[in-house]
Amino acid sequence: MNYEFILGNIRPNQEEIDAVIETTRNVIEFINRTCEEEGIDAEANAVGSVAKGTWLSGKSDIDVFISFPYESEMDYLKEKGLDLAYKTNDEFKGKANEHYASHPYLTCDIDGFEIDIVPCYDLSGGKPIKSAVDRTILHTEYIQDNLKEEQIDEVLLLKRFMDAVGTYGSEFKTGGFAGYLCELLILKYGTFEDTLRAAQNWKRHTLIDLEDFGTVGNAIFKQDPLVFIDPTDENRNVGAALRLERYVDFIVASRNFLDVLDNDDLDDYERQEKILEFFNPLLKEHLDKSKEEIAKDILESFKDRETQTLVIKFPIPIMSADALHPQLLKTVSSICEKIDMEEFSVFKYDYWTDEEKFVIFTIELNVFKQGKYYIHKGPKVWTKKACDNFKAKWGDALYPLDEFMVLTRERQFKTAKDFIIHTLQEENIHIIKVGKNIKEAICSDDCILLEIDEFLNDLDDQFNYNISNKTSEELARDYLNSLDDFLNPGQYIKR
Amino acid sequence: MNYEFILGNIRPNQEEIDAVIETTRNVIEFINRTCEEEGIDAEANAVGSVAKGTWLSGKSDIDVFISFPYESEMDYLKEKGLDLAYKTNDEFKGKANEHYASHPYLTCDIDGFEIDIVPCYDLSGGKPIKSAVDRTILHTEYIQDNLKEEQIDEVLLLKRFMDAVGTYGSEFKTGGFAGYLCELLILKYGTFEDTLRAAQNWKRHTLIDLEDFGTVGNAIFKQDPLVFIDPTDENRNVGAALRLERYVDFIVASRNFLDVLDNDDLDDYERQEKILEFFNPLLKEHLDKSKEEIAKDILESFKDRETQTLVIKFPIPIMSADALHPQLLKTVSSICEKIDMEEFSVFKYDYWTDEEKFVIFTIELNVFKQGKYYIHKGPKVWTKKACDNFKAKWGDALYPLDEFMVLTRERQFKTAKDFIIHTLQEENIHIIKVGKNIKEAICSDDCILLEIDEFLNDLDDQFNYNISNKTSEELARDYLNSLDDFLNPGQYIKR
Repeated sequence: MNYEFILGNIRPNQEEIDAVIETTRNVIEFINRTCEEEGIDAEANAVGSVAKGTWLSGKSDIDVFISFPYESEMDYLKEKGLDLAYKTNDEFKGKANEHYASHPYLTCDIDGFEIDIVPCYDLSGGKPIKSAVDRTILHTEYIQDNLKEEQIDEVLLLKRFMDAVGTYGSEFKTGGFAGYLCELLILKYGTFEDTLRAAQNWKRHTLIDLEDFGTVGNAIFKQDPLVFIDPTDENRNVGAALRLERYVDFIVASRNFLDVLDNDDLDDYERQEKILEFFNPLLKEHLDKSKEEIAKDILESFKDRETQTLVIKFPIPIMSADALHPQLLKTVSSICEKIDMEEFSVFKYDYWTDEEKFVIFTIELNVFKQGKYYIHKGPKVWTKKACDNFKAKWGDALYPLDEFMVLTRERQFKTAKDFIIHTLQEENIHIIKVGKNIKEAICSDDCILLEIDEFLNDLDDQFNYNISNKTSEELARDYLNSLDDFLNPGQYIKR
Repeated sequence: MNYEFILGNIRPNQEEIDAVIETTRNVIEFINRTCEEEGIDAEANAVGSVAKGTWLSGKSDIDVFISFPYESEMDYLKEKGLDLAYKTNDEFKGKANEHYASHPYLTCDIDGFEIDIVPCYDLSGGKPIKSAVDRTILHTEYIQDNLKEEQIDEVLLLKRFMDAVGTYGSEFKTGGFAGYLCELLILKYGTFEDTLRAAQNWKRHTLIDLEDFGTVGNAIFKQDPLVFIDPTDENRNVGAALRLERYVDFIVASRNFLDVLDNDDLDDYERQEKILEFFNPLLKEHLDKSKEEIAKDILESFKDRETQTLVIKFPIPIMSADALHPQLLKTVSSICEKIDMEEFSVFKYDYWTDEEKFVIFTIELNVFKQGKYYIHKGPKVWTKKACDNFKAKWGDALYPLDEFMVLTRERQFKTAKDFIIHTLQEENIHIIKVGKNIKEAICSDDCILLEIDEFLNDLDDQFNYNISNKTSEELARDYLNSLDDFLNPGQYIKR
């Protein structure tokens, strides 16, 4: 298949390349000049997809790393590095946000590009990494040294496909494939198409060891669905952050794509049209509707399901997205596990967050109400001593059932909602596994519990705030979009 | 404890003894005279509790067995035996009902006594039994030979206690202790009290081998809770018909009784009063109420439980009670098992029957309604071939969930009631395990399915028939009584 009709749209044109390179060069030159003027022994260099030439048109994240001598104190590197970054931002009249990886770095909005300025150690001469960010240098060098010119297009196709089917990005929220992993897959399989042809047959545990380190069977990798040994570190799996769900999504998306590609019933035009869809963002029907209309459609769908859907909304403290997401997932899944243990039945659950101010748990219940009583099981009849103790406690209410002494007791929670209300009290929160940073907020008066129709009918009130890069309207739509995903599982991986 | 205050009421007085003996003798003499006149080589004898002197006052079931020579053809025995029985019934102007054990026999109502007239083989000289009923002769002789005079009172106490706590009677409906088993327990443990003191510590599997046959560990007895080797047959367990429920009931009732007996906080009068209760039929509160009032109370209780209770009523064909009960139990428990498999939840179920005309299944549901959809699980993602087949069948509806290809499908049964209606169709009845004799009726138009309130509000219509020994009023009360037991488990075994 000739993918030029797709590549034409995703390959950066000369104008974009020139602009990216110019901005990058300007930033690097400014930093290096400043170092010289201030007598700092450090040197800025481009790394990442810009350095590798593997960025998708319009998605250039410029990474500029400032290398300090290998012997530098970490404190010195941190202080001087951040200082240089802020000076750069000021020089170019950028907008800066501080972030934190293994140490602080700056993300600057300069000339319409997002530029990460990150202090690191100079590893030249094959020295081992000293801080986690140093890896990026090794990764950049490895790809520069090994990826063939003609394979850059294959990387672009794979990244774009991954993005469209929702499996691209290694941050916890997505749990998908990192850019570096995409590049390595092309090194392994040669082309975009052959990567998908391989992926469609991937098993529960796929092992790839490009440099034949022989470490791929190590016990620490046993739980990872995809083990791709980092060619720059034999003890690291590049796919460590890849979640099983995204791994599976990519396998199934590959099959769906190849079913189209290999379908002899399609003529060339039809095939090309269908294939193109796999590289475009999913076109949802409701994009041109008002948020009230979308909410109405979503409510209709929930009503049709004859379930009860509860919404829990609470504020989050200031924390990094990568720390937040695991805590949210852990908390909502623990709530649902306990709901099931109370003999209600959760049909589906999910969470949404703006990553700055609020979190919303969505819990859909198949069984949300139960009879008033339950059978409280005591000891087996055969152990008289235990039965005597049980009787001393419960008296005449006891009776035998099968081999057990039991009694009929009133259920503490007749509805799943009752159980949640009870559990989200400070004195009961220990019932569930709750993320430590959100524990306080979820138990506070700021936490609200509503049925989905109450929540959606009150959309303007629920989203009456902005965050740094989204308006209240955008937030509401983003949340509604997540509900649409909730109601339509798997919609991204097929077209 | 001196139990004379109880024995005074349960030991037959001289008048009753004389009457029983006279009727028994008259019947025996008539049969023997007729045999002589007709040249039949057979002899009538009393067996059972009357022959053993172990019947409870007012509960004399007279058993008269007609022994035919050991060499007689079974057909001859059957024909002549039944003929003699009918002649006897006519002579004494009785009312006869034919029954069936291993062969037909007659139950006659004569002089106010219920008399079983049963043809059997003469085993004298220690011959092995030829038909199942012949055992009764051996049992009678064994008890006559081994039970001491003073132990008869102990047998009476045990039988009466068993009766009051609902564990007496080996027919399937009760699944309790046979009279012979009660007598053997007194032979084993000596007294009523010592039997209870032993029983309170019985384990899951109690083994008693009075004659030291050494067969008590045989594999065929492994499932029986109580193995009491028949002193007249080393390969038979007298407790074979004892159901685990009744075995457990007796253990717990024994503990409850002994808790009163050994309670030092009670004075003698209080203790005697409380002990007496254990020998009297359970006094239910509603005995003096109209059946409409009882039904109203019962409906209140069901309403309080916040469950949904369904009632299935259908006619039964003519068959023996012992064949009927297992089929009913099997059928209703299979329905409930399948309801649970459909992810509804049965809280409790039971059946009632008049043993002649109708059966009523009562099914109380904790979860009786569910959401519209369920997740239909396909093959694991890892087996591409299976996934291809699954996709060929279900197409675009598929999506991956965890490691599986799944789809969201509409539930066939949104309520447990829907499921039952579907299942009780002739073409679907194979879904459940249904007793072969009731299969036709349960699928017929004569089978009705109602909610408990609809059923109880229509009591006169539901019980607008009589059976041989019960009026419609008595039947309705009997059914309501069974619902009272349903709502108050274990009420018989405590006082």
